[in-house]
Amino acid sequence: MAINLKVPGENEIFPINGIEIGIAEAGIKKINKKDLTIFKISENTTVSGSFTRNLFKAAPVQVSEENLNLSLPRIRALVINTGNANAGTGKTGIEAARNTCEALGKLLNINPEQILPFSTGVIMEPLPIEKLIKALPNAIRNLGNSSWQDAAYSIMTTDTTPKIFSEKFIIGNKNVTVTGISKGAGMICPNMATMLAFIGTDIKIEQSLLNRMIKEITDSSFNRITVDGDTSTNDSFVIMATGTSDLAITSENDKHYQEVLLALKKASLDLSQKIIRDAEGATKFITIDIVQANNTEEALKVAYSIAHSPLVKTAFYASDPNIGRILAAIGYSKAKIKIEDLYIWLNEVLIVKNGAINPDYKEEDGKNVLQQTEIRIKVFIGTGNINETIYTCDLSHEYVTINAEYRS
Amino acid sequence: MAINLKVPGENEIFPINGIEIGIAEAGIKKINKKDLTIFKISENTTVSGSFTRNLFKAAPVQVSEENLNLSLPRIRALVINTGNANAGTGKTGIEAARNTCEALGKLLNINPEQILPFSTGVIMEPLPIEKLIKALPNAIRNLGNSSWQDAAYSIMTTDTTPKIFSEKFIIGNKNVTVTGISKGAGMICPNMATMLAFIGTDIKIEQSLLNRMIKEITDSSFNRITVDGDTSTNDSFVIMATGTSDLAITSENDKHYQEVLLALKKASLDLSQKIIRDAEGATKFITIDIVQANNTEEALKVAYSIAHSPLVKTAFYASDPNIGRILAAIGYSKAKIKIEDLYIWLNEVLIVKNGAINPDYKEEDGKNVLQQTEIRIKVFIGTGNINETIYTCDLSHEYVTINAEYRS
Repeated sequence: MAINLKVPGENEIFPINGIEIGIAEAGIKKINKKDLTIFKISENTTVSGSFTRNLFKAAPVQVSEENLNLSLPRIRALVINTGNANAGTGKTGIEAARNTCEALGKLLNINPEQILPFSTGVIMEPLPIEKLIKALPNAIRNLGNSSWQDAAYSIMTTDTTPKIFSEKFIIGNKNVTVTGISKGAGMICPNMATMLAFIGTDIKIEQSLLNRMIKEITDSSFNRITVDGDTSTNDSFVIMATGTSDLAITSENDKHYQEVLLALKKASLDLSQKIIRDAEGATKFITIDIVQANNTEEALKVAYSIAHSPLVKTAFYASDPNIGRILAAIGYSKAKIKIEDLYIWLNEVLIVKNGAINPDYKEEDGKNVLQQTEIRIKVFIGTGNINETIYTCDLSHEYVTINAEYRS
Repeated sequence: MAINLKVPGENEIFPINGIEIGIAEAGIKKINKKDLTIFKISENTTVSGSFTRNLFKAAPVQVSEENLNLSLPRIRALVINTGNANAGTGKTGIEAARNTCEALGKLLNINPEQILPFSTGVIMEPLPIEKLIKALPNAIRNLGNSSWQDAAYSIMTTDTTPKIFSEKFIIGNKNVTVTGISKGAGMICPNMATMLAFIGTDIKIEQSLLNRMIKEITDSSFNRITVDGDTSTNDSFVIMATGTSDLAITSENDKHYQEVLLALKKASLDLSQKIIRDAEGATKFITIDIVQANNTEEALKVAYSIAHSPLVKTAFYASDPNIGRILAAIGYSKAKIKIEDLYIWLNEVLIVKNGAINPDYKEEDGKNVLQQTEIRIKVFIGTGNINETIYTCDLSHEYVTINAEYRS
């Protein structure tokens, strides 16, 4: 079902020295499935997080942000459950998230504040905390025996396939590894979504640098994907840098800073795109390039207006090069553009020239592009020098089916 | 298919003295169907219009706005075709719209500038101007023999049913009539949509007053409906006040000004709601009330964030009282709200109290509401004293089917 989504083979997924993974079945999901994941991380690991901007932050997001903001002691574990998002659950939800940390802390002999909790699944229903706590020992017993691949499966909700990135880099003559997993499906949107992503690396990175990096990384990856415009209450993205390799980055002026940033960006972009490739009901992967806009805000207005238009999305689903719908979406984006300067391409096909349909355009050419599963819409605005790229998908029957039946 | 949409019987539709209607078959639509409508209006009629705010205004919209802005001579005719929107057609499109007015002007012995052209249908394809012009004499021969009902049918595109309002009012002891028609279906959105609406009345209203009225009327009706968030390039709404009754409104201080405004608002609200009731694939009519917001902008942010959420819309389609999706949509609306002050009702059922799920809420009660075809979401914000109401519908399989196949 997923669009050109490659799952790496077991021998292509490299563990991160300093991170142990344990999974278990807590019985929170209806079906028989692993739904509990623990990351146990070594003492000197630097951990940074990026979270949903939805006003209604789920309980685990609130607790994770709180715990991350305590500068010391450092984070030593992550606990993730699927099947229930512990969102919209008020004070009881916060207590449930804290109790989870409390229980895990006792078992691992660390403070509850050294743990970040994450939940994903059904919202507005109480987290079955007893089930979760009861399963913790099983997950712990598993620590070190479970792989990133196991974890990738264990955090899935309506995802059809696990999402894994793993690569070894040589930076400054040092061997380093970056491995990560993500889950998504519906409700993926700018400023993150029902989306969880966890990246580990053995590079050593100072806390303040990693905090700065994660912002830039999120803005070029997880904050540039959208399925349906909805932002969930639970979106979380965490980077864990264990420092177990020989490479250490201590300042922004470090000559390898940019290489490290690029490696982490590569992982994040891959994991975020995989979320779109496996979005609910998606049949086409659509890249929207905005070229030479006046500023980022204007560029994103145009990009998201196209990406969120149900009329554009259904036309793409039908392989219908309905240029008018794209133009209309740009027209109501409220971005300041000069119509006569506007150029639009579908892959290599120039469809709009000087704000009107390209006289040399043949509908057949547009149709050929739209029949592919990878489509790039390039919009040249020409009012400045800012380029932005976002990723989205089409809107299919399957999307409606999945989202009309998710709880029933 | 349409949701509780009542089409008035022939004897309930009252003509407007001073307006003659003629329809014809120009062959612009693929199927055998009337697709050309002419309104011929008497000499002293006051005409005001309200048009799309999409940056890409279709050619007929540009020409109509231009002609309306010429203060004299007054507008004497409207010409409307379906099957082709003459949108995204550049200079050729403008010429086509002007040529239509030219041809009709000759036949009616009026200036082309006294005519407003309207087009709706497929975009980005050249208007078959010869077919249109060839059919004009037929439509003119028909003038006076066609009814508002005929016109309501003739302006339909993917609408499943004609949309007609007609009512006699007694204002200041004078008998007056308001009759109107509209068409919609997809792409209905704030700031209007692929939506045409024409209202006639025999009340006499000064030009400057009608201009002021139409703004207020549009903002409480056609600018408060949304199907999919897309705003079309062709949206147009016109009021024609022939002044053939005994009632004349010459100043805002006129003691009947408010009554007249209310009568026109009633017509507009009815015609705009009918567009939603017949929206593509809609199975539920949803009213969203925002109560005690700080200002209109904040209220509409919340309202449209709910109305445009595909997750909310698919849940409503499935009769699933997924409260979390509503809260999430409010949460990413960017409106400034205090979570703890938030109350939400589904019809009479209180689902959210102080920003969290109402402890007394039973899912069964929510489900009962959502199984109805008329649903009201009331969101109490409590930061000010502004109330706003918008109208929308659910998102169904049928919507995807229609919009994925519209051109093929």
